[in-house]
Amino acid sequence: MEHGEQTIRVAVAGATGYTGAELIRYLSRHPKAQIVAASSESMAGQELEQVFPGRGEKLRGLRLVSLEELLCVAADAVFLCLPHGQSAEVGARLAGEGKKVIDLSADFRLPDPALYRQWYGIDHPCPEWLGAACYGLSEFYRDQIRRAQIVANPGCYPTAALLALVPLVRARLIEANTVVIDAKSGLSGAGKTPKPHLHFAEANENVAPYSPGRMHRHVPEIDWYLTLAAGRKVQVIFVPHLIPMDRGILETIYVHLTSGTKPEDVLHCWRAAYAQEPFVRVLEHGLPATKRVAWTNVCELGLAWSEGGVAVLVSAIDNLGKGASGQAVQNLNILFGLEEGLGLV
Amino acid sequence: MEHGEQTIRVAVAGATGYTGAELIRYLSRHPKAQIVAASSESMAGQELEQVFPGRGEKLRGLRLVSLEELLCVAADAVFLCLPHGQSAEVGARLAGEGKKVIDLSADFRLPDPALYRQWYGIDHPCPEWLGAACYGLSEFYRDQIRRAQIVANPGCYPTAALLALVPLVRARLIEANTVVIDAKSGLSGAGKTPKPHLHFAEANENVAPYSPGRMHRHVPEIDWYLTLAAGRKVQVIFVPHLIPMDRGILETIYVHLTSGTKPEDVLHCWRAAYAQEPFVRVLEHGLPATKRVAWTNVCELGLAWSEGGVAVLVSAIDNLGKGASGQAVQNLNILFGLEEGLGLV
Amino acid sequence: MEHGEQTIRVAVAGATGYTGAELIRYLSRHPKAQIVAASSESMAGQELEQVFPGRGEKLRGLRLVSLEELLCVAADAVFLCLPHGQSAEVGARLAGEGKKVIDLSADFRLPDPALYRQWYGIDHPCPEWLGAACYGLSEFYRDQIRRAQIVANPGCYPTAALLALVPLVRARLIEANTVVIDAKSGLSGAGKTPKPHLHFAEANENVAPYSPGRMHRHVPEIDWYLTLAAGRKVQVIFVPHLIPMDRGILETIYVHLTSGTKPEDVLHCWRAAYAQEPFVRVLEHGLPATKRVAWTNVCELGLAWSEGGVAVLVSAIDNLGKGASGQAVQNLNILFGLEEGLGLV
Amino acid sequence: MEHGEQTIRVAVAGATGYTGAELIRYLSRHPKAQIVAASSESMAGQELEQVFPGRGEKLRGLRLVSLEELLCVAADAVFLCLPHGQSAEVGARLAGEGKKVIDLSADFRLPDPALYRQWYGIDHPCPEWLGAACYGLSEFYRDQIRRAQIVANPGCYPTAALLALVPLVRARLIEANTVVIDAKSGLSGAGKTPKPHLHFAEANENVAPYSPGRMHRHVPEIDWYLTLAAGRKVQVIFVPHLIPMDRGILETIYVHLTSGTKPEDVLHCWRAAYAQEPFVRVLEHGLPATKRVAWTNVCELGLAWSEGGVAVLVSAIDNLGKGASGQAVQNLNILFGLEEGLGLV
Repeated sequence: MEHGEQTIRVAVAGATGYTGAELIRYLSRHPKAQIVAASSESMAGQELEQVFPGRGEKLRGLRLVSLEELLCVAADAVFLCLPHGQSAEVGARLAGEGKKVIDLSADFRLPDPALYRQWYGIDHPCPEWLGAACYGLSEFYRDQIRRAQIVANPGCYPTAALLALVPLVRARLIEANTVVIDAKSGLSGAGKTPKPHLHFAEANENVAPYSPGRMHRHVPEIDWYLTLAAGRKVQVIFVPHLIPMDRGILETIYVHLTSGTKPEDVLHCWRAAYAQEPFVRVLEHGLPATKRVAWTNVCELGLAWSEGGVAVLVSAIDNLGKGASGQAVQNLNILFGLEEGLGLV
Repeated sequence: MEHGEQTIRVAVAGATGYTGAELIRYLSRHPKAQIVAASSESMAGQELEQVFPGRGEKLRGLRLVSLEELLCVAADAVFLCLPHGQSAEVGARLAGEGKKVIDLSADFRLPDPALYRQWYGIDHPCPEWLGAACYGLSEFYRDQIRRAQIVANPGCYPTAALLALVPLVRARLIEANTVVIDAKSGLSGAGKTPKPHLHFAEANENVAPYSPGRMHRHVPEIDWYLTLAAGRKVQVIFVPHLIPMDRGILETIYVHLTSGTKPEDVLHCWRAAYAQEPFVRVLEHGLPATKRVAWTNVCELGLAWSEGGVAVLVSAIDNLGKGASGQAVQNLNILFGLEEGLGLV
Repeated sequence: MEHGEQTIRVAVAGATGYTGAELIRYLSRHPKAQIVAASSESMAGQELEQVFPGRGEKLRGLRLVSLEELLCVAADAVFLCLPHGQSAEVGARLAGEGKKVIDLSADFRLPDPALYRQWYGIDHPCPEWLGAACYGLSEFYRDQIRRAQIVANPGCYPTAALLALVPLVRARLIEANTVVIDAKSGLSGAGKTPKPHLHFAEANENVAPYSPGRMHRHVPEIDWYLTLAAGRKVQVIFVPHLIPMDRGILETIYVHLTSGTKPEDVLHCWRAAYAQEPFVRVLEHGLPATKRVAWTNVCELGLAWSEGGVAVLVSAIDNLGKGASGQAVQNLNILFGLEEGLGLV
Repeated sequence: MEHGEQTIRVAVAGATGYTGAELIRYLSRHPKAQIVAASSESMAGQELEQVFPGRGEKLRGLRLVSLEELLCVAADAVFLCLPHGQSAEVGARLAGEGKKVIDLSADFRLPDPALYRQWYGIDHPCPEWLGAACYGLSEFYRDQIRRAQIVANPGCYPTAALLALVPLVRARLIEANTVVIDAKSGLSGAGKTPKPHLHFAEANENVAPYSPGRMHRHVPEIDWYLTLAAGRKVQVIFVPHLIPMDRGILETIYVHLTSGTKPEDVLHCWRAAYAQEPFVRVLEHGLPATKRVAWTNVCELGLAWSEGGVAVLVSAIDNLGKGASGQAVQNLNILFGLEEGLGLV
């Protein structure tokens, strides 16, 4: 396939959930991507322009289709915004047909099927495809992504955590095994299905932790990629909280510096790691806040405080941007040899 | 029954929805009411102190029971926070046993069973009890409430509308048949059952109308009591909107003054009507806002503007306070000859 | 000036208020516009990439400058997000230099300097330029915009109102002089300057009217352009409300149909008026809601209800999109003969 | 003074800020307290019933006065909701006249004037009165409060932290010097004065840390009282965050258990400490959430997770309830030998 002047034909499976809608938003302004199909079980038949007003000409004439129809459309790449389990099955089929797959579910994030079974309660539907998948944390895996058939787009919480921690762990500036991540997330991160605790009059004017400690499914994902970075087994403590806002994740990360490490080493390390990265910004002054990065593909990092060998790191992303669909489009660009920021401004 | 030094034994059927919980809050501090039972289908068995923290000693030792159990408890008055249809059946049974019933559903608000059938799609379960019921708009029906076996606690939207309009219609200061009510309501008014449009990430950062014109079930209720006040048939235009907040209703009401009426007549009329009313406040300057009346039993009225025979009235309440549970407690006080503000500060 | 392959050099005066920031966002992805300068009194000297993260390469190397510096930069078009009064002075100077001016303030919206004095309390700083200015309601004035030196970008409330009403008034489907507009706006519409009633803990969980009736400065603007459309003097009743959300305006508009007009005529009229317009959408079913159009340049219109000669119209926009900066960019495209949707997806 | 049947005459200095208004709310329903005066510099002259609608008869006839006037009113107890510095001066004067003072500012919380100078940048205005003051954390200092002339009502963040930590530190179940407190607070905690970062359109849809590590003025207060509990110098790490909601503080506290301590020991210790306390609730299952305790004087504690010697504690209060005015009323009750829950339901 040649991509010089050609457009890339992309499809979005599960286009009417929050990550799917955000993909449509980004792809609508992507100069090289052509949306050839978008599926939705509940809204099949509706016009894309009706469902997503203001997204411009690219959606003209398109209607939402069923997943089965989407699978039959000729496409170069397919984004999967499907429930875990189903996603792996669909992804394997598409990858088998030679299509590039960018999977926003958790199905290909953990290379170990035993771990998958432990956390998702089912056998991985196609473990034979795990080897063809690459973890899609763009800044650290772009060489592998370029060659992968399936990109496992990272979880929102792991993205914010790993962008802060991976360079520090690799450089051995922090004790990898005493990391505490206190995460605050907007409600779109919890998905579009109505549930009692996501009901407006319950979630509004409320802040509450959930799945604390090591109970959230993003824990093994964070552990796995920090373990790779550290070269030895890492286990983090992770406590997510729901915040009454639509979008945004802020992670306040408490770490111990390794002996001899000075606080400024953290900043130097981050600056070196991200000097050429358009989507990771190291703040010189001020602290990250979710509103600054809302509706963008940016992660902002800040060193909030450090004393006596302890440091407080802060990482902010839009859970639907760098934490999901923004990064997915970034990975599309990597997969097809395009300028990495296309469609992401 | 003697009420001098005695306490009134009250029960709350459906105590864990929003109006039920607000009743528990008010009753917890009511000096004459003793909560003898509270029911919840989904949470039966749980301790009231666990479900409603900080409500004090009155809840000590009480557990949520099933509706059937509640019906067997000796009580002087029972508040019904049940779905329409079911509420009438339960209310009739309780009233038949001589208990006073304060029904927060719509079942006894419309005296005409044909109208009930038209708007609720079912035959009224016990039309024979409609005559024993009284509309519970405290300020205008307290004499009847005192003698009623069943009090039909008004709807939230009608309460805000009628408190603004009834005195003006009675005094023939406004043309009763050209009233436009633009209502804005917080989300607790829509109940506790999760629904797609009430999902936080859908309802937040959104304002939207629903059931516009004459489609909302509160329309016949407003019409009925304005018709009574006017002495001839009245039909309003009513457009409710959902606002991303927990509590509060603000109604902006557009009316035509009758010939010869001056804007100040509106204020005079309101002041005369509510001079002795602790729970209706006519603003001398400034405009009503929902936050001023949130968590209270107060309705604030303001004349926003008038020119050329048109006037803009504004009415604000807490939909769970004067719009539901606050007024229900006010009606309890009326029913039992108590000082009307007991428990409502 | 030739615009075929050339880029348009644009400057933004007042870039760090809400409309300025939104302009930066749109211009960052505009394929033909080059941002050559952006000013901010309070943040002059700061890098644009720091102030506006995630807006891509176009901002690279740019720093916020003072207004005086901005005025000296060679530019083809300048957007003014300045206080009224100052805006006219700056606009006149820039227009005198032959630059195209898109003024987001109110200074050139009212062609009559006496009206300006009445509503803004000062003499218009440069009434001689009023003739060179054109009202920038893109869908109705694009021929004049194309030839104008100064575009008076419409107010947010008037945009939502006029898009709903102008075609109906022109076609004489509604009585132009009995229009009631009940408007609900997010808080960004009130600007970035901290004020007591815009303080989070005051504005949150609150809905309140302000400047009701005919007191708001957008009233003469709505009247003026409806008067033009009607061919006779029109005065509307307009009551704006603040809603606890960042963005969005929803207007519920109560109108009387002219004799013989049927509700479906409203829809036909709208459809005819906007058939070729990418940024005005007439809903076939469902009702407008602000969230659908948030972060877009779209206006959605719906006929909510009609009976007995009265109709309820609903119009929704993003106050920062079609209500300000989106429409400003649309007007830029018109001014320079570009495809009207450039940068607006 | 005899309190059997007598009422306590109370005054509130600074009644129109958020803590002052909440005091008025609680005192309005307090059966033994009579509000004799309330001051407000900005709103002096206004009727209390107008400023605080729905608070009942106790406010009837009262007008806001200036601080000077308030100081001349005969009162048994005065609540001070004044800026630090001013509060100490006023408090000393009142205490000198034999009035009981409940100070909601920080002025008497730190017994060491050097520490006060370090954190507040001024010399303490009346260090000679520090000895007459008692820290007002009701559950742990009620014996001293009973005898104190001045009660230093605790800060909101310290209240939530100390209620979780003091019993555990006293029982040596946790390592007092490795405590990390990640705090999330609603915006009313930041006061009523408009500031850029508290502007609705800035604070809404945003979560951000501030004063991280050991920079917040509540840090020395937490340290001081943990140091007392531990019997040796303690320094915590404390990172507060602003959350887009009106009320509520949730603290997620990361601690190391001392050698030999089992997670259930934490629960046992809390249960023993708070078995008789109506306002501290130890959750058996589920996790604290701010909405459960909003508008109450309750603190809810939960053990979220524990493994490998680390435990995650969660503490939730209403910052205006137990975190300020609720606890202040609790302290009033203690001071005057009343039942501790009076007025607090």
